[in-house]
Parts: sequence; C-alpha cells; structure tokens
Amino acid sequence: MSAAATTARDIAMKGGGYYSKATGGAKDVIDGATTMVLDAIADMEIADNGAIFTMSDMGCADGGTSMAMVGKALAAIRAKAPSRPLQMVYTDLPRNDFSQVFCNVHGLSDAKSYIDDFENLFVMASGTSFHKRIFPAGTLNLGFSATASHYISDRPCNITNHVHMVGAEGAERAAYTEQGRKDWESMLSNRAADMASGARLCLFNFGIDEEGRYLGHTGGVSMFDTFSLLWQRLVDEGAVTNEEFAATNFPQHYRTVAEFKAPLIDEANPVHQAGLRLSHAETRVVRCPYAAAFEEHRDAGRFAHEYIPTLRSWSESTFFSGLSEERPVEERQNIVDRFYDSYETMVRESPEGHAMDYVHCYMVIRKV
Amino acid sequence: MSAAATTARDIAMKGGGYYSKATGGAKDVIDGATTMVLDAIADMEIADNGAIFTMSDMGCADGGTSMAMVGKALAAIRAKAPSRPLQMVYTDLPRNDFSQVFCNVHGLSDAKSYIDDFENLFVMASGTSFHKRIFPAGTLNLGFSATASHYISDRPCNITNHVHMVGAEGAERAAYTEQGRKDWESMLSNRAADMASGARLCLFNFGIDEEGRYLGHTGGVSMFDTFSLLWQRLVDEGAVTNEEFAATNFPQHYRTVAEFKAPLIDEANPVHQAGLRLSHAETRVVRCPYAAAFEEHRDAGRFAHEYIPTLRSWSESTFFSGLSEERPVEERQNIVDRFYDSYETMVRESPEGHAMDYVHCYMVIRKV
Repeated sequence: MSAAATTARDIAMKGGGYYSKATGGAKDVIDGATTMVLDAIADMEIADNGAIFTMSDMGCADGGTSMAMVGKALAAIRAKAPSRPLQMVYTDLPRNDFSQVFCNVHGLSDAKSYIDDFENLFVMASGTSFHKRIFPAGTLNLGFSATASHYISDRPCNITNHVHMVGAEGAERAAYTEQGRKDWESMLSNRAADMASGARLCLFNFGIDEEGRYLGHTGGVSMFDTFSLLWQRLVDEGAVTNEEFAATNFPQHYRTVAEFKAPLIDEANPVHQAGLRLSHAETRVVRCPYAAAFEEHRDAGRFAHEYIPTLRSWSESTFFSGLSEERPVEERQNIVDRFYDSYETMVRESPEGHAMDYVHCYMVIRKV
Repeated sequence: MSAAATTARDIAMKGGGYYSKATGGAKDVIDGATTMVLDAIADMEIADNGAIFTMSDMGCADGGTSMAMVGKALAAIRAKAPSRPLQMVYTDLPRNDFSQVFCNVHGLSDAKSYIDDFENLFVMASGTSFHKRIFPAGTLNLGFSATASHYISDRPCNITNHVHMVGAEGAERAAYTEQGRKDWESMLSNRAADMASGARLCLFNFGIDEEGRYLGHTGGVSMFDTFSLLWQRLVDEGAVTNEEFAATNFPQHYRTVAEFKAPLIDEANPVHQAGLRLSHAETRVVRCPYAAAFEEHRDAGRFAHEYIPTLRSWSESTFFSGLSEERPVEERQNIVDRFYDSYETMVRESPEGHAMDYVHCYMVIRKV
C-alpha cells in the first residue's frame, strides 16, 4: 500500500540499506522539510508530565530516509518535555524489511542513527496498514509519513491508454480519483482515532501541484509518458500483448492539492468531524539528484546508467506484474530487462530533459 | 543473544515459517505450559480501567511457537478487563526476521493467528536486546520468554575439551556460570524496570534439572557429547584443527534451578531489591517429537533424516563459526556438511537412545 513497503519488498533481497542508497532524492525531500516538522513541534503544547510521547514514521521502508529528521524531531520534543519517555514507532506493511529498520536504528548498518543520543527512548515497529488503527486510542502524539499515501489499496480498473492515472481519462481517471479519495479519508480517519488531542501529523506526499506538475513531469520529458510510450513500443514489436498493456497500471493516485485538503476543510467530512484540521499546506519541487549531477558532469552514458536503476527500484514490480502469468518467470524478466534497457538507451542517446524531479504536497495537520 | 534470534538469523533465508515447522518441540513446550501463563493471569489484579495492557514475547523468533498461547492469554486478559486496549509486543535481536513475525500474526502465512479474534488489539515489535530496557518504565504488564535466555551475551573463554559448557570443567565451567549469572541478573533487572507493579513474567528456559538432565541429555545418548565426539573425530581425521575445536563453543549457559532462583530469593540481590519475587518454579522434560515418532514407526533411516535437521537448525552457526576464516566459505560449509552427515549416519546405524528431549525450568515471577 505504501510506496515504501512496495519498494522495500521489491528490493529487500538486495539488503544492506540498498533502498536508502537508491533513494537519495527521497531523503532530500525529508531533509529539506525537516523545519516543517520542527515548527509543528514548536507549535505543540507538550506538557512535561512524564507520560509517554509517541512519534511514528508510517510507511517507513528501511527507516533510512527519515533517520536524520527523526533524530532532530526527538531532540526537539525532549527539549520541550524532558520527563517524557520517547516511543518511536516505525510502521509499514508486514512484508517490509523490518530487520533492516532495526539494524539501521540500532547501529548495525552504515546508517548514522540517533539511538545513542537519547536516554529513555524506546523504538518499536508495527506491521499494521495505515488503513487500519495502529495505536491505542489517543496515544499518537506526532505522526509522520513521506511518499507513501499515493499507493491505493485497490486498483479500481485498468487504464486503457496509459500505465499511470496521470495519463488516464474520463471514467477511468474518475475511478482512480474516487479510490484515492476513499483511501485518503480512510488513512486520516484512522489517524484521527489514534491521535491524542493536540497531536500533529506531518505528511509529505506525491501529488499534482498547482501548475500540474508531478513526479518526473516538471517541464522536460515526462517520465510516466515515457514509461507508457516504451511499454507500448513493446506491444508494437509483439513482445507484449494489448491485454498485458491494459493490465499494467501503477496502483497509485496522485492527488491534487484540493483533493489533499478536502476532508480537512469540509465540515461535513468524517475526518473534519473527527477533529482533524489543516495547519499548513504547500507544494515543492525537489530536483532529481541524477539530473542535477548530469548538469555538472555532462556524461550522458553515466547519467543513463545511474538514473534508470532509481526508476526501476520502485516501478519494476508494476511492469512485471502486468505480464501474463502464463509466461515463464524468466521470460517476464527478460521483457522487463528489455524495457528498462530501452529507457536507458533513450536517455543515453538524448539525455536532455529527463529528470525524476519530486513533486510533493507537504501538510501539517492537527487534532483539536 | 536469544536462541530465537540466532536461529531465525541462521535460517531466515529459508523463510515461510521454516523455523516454526522445524521446532515443533519448542511449540510443544509452550503449549504444554500455557496453563501456567493462564494461572498467572488469573492470579493478577487487572483493573478494568481502560489503560493499555502490554504483553510481550521476548526472544520471539518468528512468533509461531507462541501464537496459540498468546491468543489464549490475550483472551483471558480481555475477559478480566474488557475496557483495556491490548498491546502485544514481539521482541528479538535486530537481525531477527520480523517481517515473518508480522506475516504470521497478520494472517499472511499458513500460521493460524489470533489477530481477527480481538478488537482494540495493537501488535508491535521491538529489536531491542532483553539486556537493555525495552519498555517505558512501569508499562510491561505480562512478559513471556521461552527458550531464549540460555544464550549469553559474551563467550567468556574457549572450552578446551568440549563444545558446550555442560561438558566444561574447572575454571572454564566457572567462567560460563559467572557469565550466565550476570546475564540472568541483567535480563531480570531490566524487566523489573520495564514492569508495572503487579506485573508477571512467565519464563520457560533451557536449564539443568534436579536430576542433572538437560537438552538432549535425559538418560540416552547425550546430544552435546555426541556433537563434541564427532567434532573431535574430524580433528583426528585432520579435517578440523585443534585450534578450531577449541574455538567451537556454543554461546550458551544452562542454569541450574538454584541459579535461576538465586536473584529472586537473595534479599541482597539487585533483582530482589527491584521488587521481583518468585511465584512458581518447576522443571519439566518434554519428549523429543522425532524420537517419539521413531518409537512408533521404527524406521531408523527416517528418524535420522528427520532428526538431524532440527539439531542443525540451531547448532550449525556454532560449528561454522568455529572454523578458521582463512578457509574459503565453501570449504567451511563442506566440513559442516560432513559433520552432520556423520551424525546422521550414527543415528541411522544405531538409533536407540538418540533424542533431543527438552528440559526446561518454568518460572512465574511477579513484581511487588
């Protein structure tokens, strides 16, 4: 359901913090918005009453991308309320590599951890979906989630002419929007029940900004259109069937800012009625680190070689699972290899404009 | 540090609940003593006050062996105090396969889980060693741990004439006993701080009973003596060096009943001073399921074929890591294969008396 979980599952076998290394840009997104988390903490009333203070990273993957932010956030909370035990809970879907989370946090990997910076800190994990209740009622004090809520819990239909809802039209587009709406309200409603009065949520999610930009679609070559184009080319070449093309759909919905805000400002919405209020919302574009590096080194071969693996790390499972299960696994893998090879060739031969720029909607939400 | 962690790490790659399947006997131990846990719950005052009730399985491995017991325990707690949210926390070392824990609990494996039997239940995991604090002070209500505390946090010395402390003598034996004493007090002291007043610990651990029996040493062929004999035979045959034999030591201490009880009944001991008291202690022998099956089927080849893998699942890492790192990995693996082949041959040719009977000391401890 979360990007994190799906990605971690796909590449868990590579181990050793591979996810964090392959997602430097995702860490940039969190690092760049850490002040938003610290401002939210500064804005909270945190009584120095000795009660447990629970923070959570929901959709944490291996915990690497948020590690620096979490350390700073815990320090800020501790400074405001030194008597309170800190409980840091990492959540993701059950198949996530939670051992890697604990190895990273407990200093058994090359990730730099905050674990030795705090006394009276207790690190836990939960394998419960954020579409369910994760915490006992009223016990979550600070919830964080980055780049996870665009995954939808169910694909409502195939997308005929594209591989992602950003290219879908008409009833198909509407079906994804509706699934995205339901999942967003479900996630927020469950958090409203988890949260203490006065608690905050800091949610940094993929979305569509006020100028229509979204991940990999910021004015240059559109990444999802390229995915669709090259997958269609395999259909034209007879390697992939029309049925397989139709069955290849990212299980994602990129929400507009209005969609993100709706349940928090509509007074009739169950999320609003449960006490969640919007404190802050903004969009940002964070530059693709591989495209930024290319602007310096100007080596198209190197760019293509470094850029495609980061796309592949989170997209491969979608293309693989679009292929018929009647094909032997090795045949499916060969088709997917050919697909990413064609993308790498395209970037090497014509590198300008390719970029997986991140477009996020950053929200801070409070519970009254 | 825990048997669970070590075993789970060793065989994590086999996945799919392999640990639980390979350890039917360990499940028998827990199932057979579930009434002891239920009696402890019956004996507790559990105010129906809506506060979170936290239960934990410490050294949980994949959670499979305790699943049925945990479901019954949670039901008993819920019946006594229906208003209290239940928090079930699985702990083990960071490298444990926590994804398998969550898959088992959340019904994504063939393990039968209690997850759908309870509302207001929250399942968490912790990768914190039980030689450290795991829970905020005074928040653990019912701690459980089975077949984990015999692992010691550090090997104090090599054992010259044997591979396990049960065969050690003199100063070597004393060094293991001392390490076992320190670790037992450390584990109990940390739990004393974790526990609420009136909380209980149910600890079922490998030990040496009043008749001198211990795991695989209950009157027939002694398992650890056989390990030592066959490993020495590889020295005699030139396959293993004397230095490697000396470096092959299980990082374990099997405590006597007196050693288990000491910190709880000695009023000067920090554990006693922290408020832990012994409510109940007994020893039991649980029959090796493979030897029991052999008594029925009388097929020595089948017995040997089924019996050796269960020994190997938790002992292999000790023999492998005793071998010099100057040997290529494949060479070390070949020596270990030859070792277990020799054990299987011995059992096939002379099956009588071989049995990995479990000998546990069962303790219920309360915090005043």
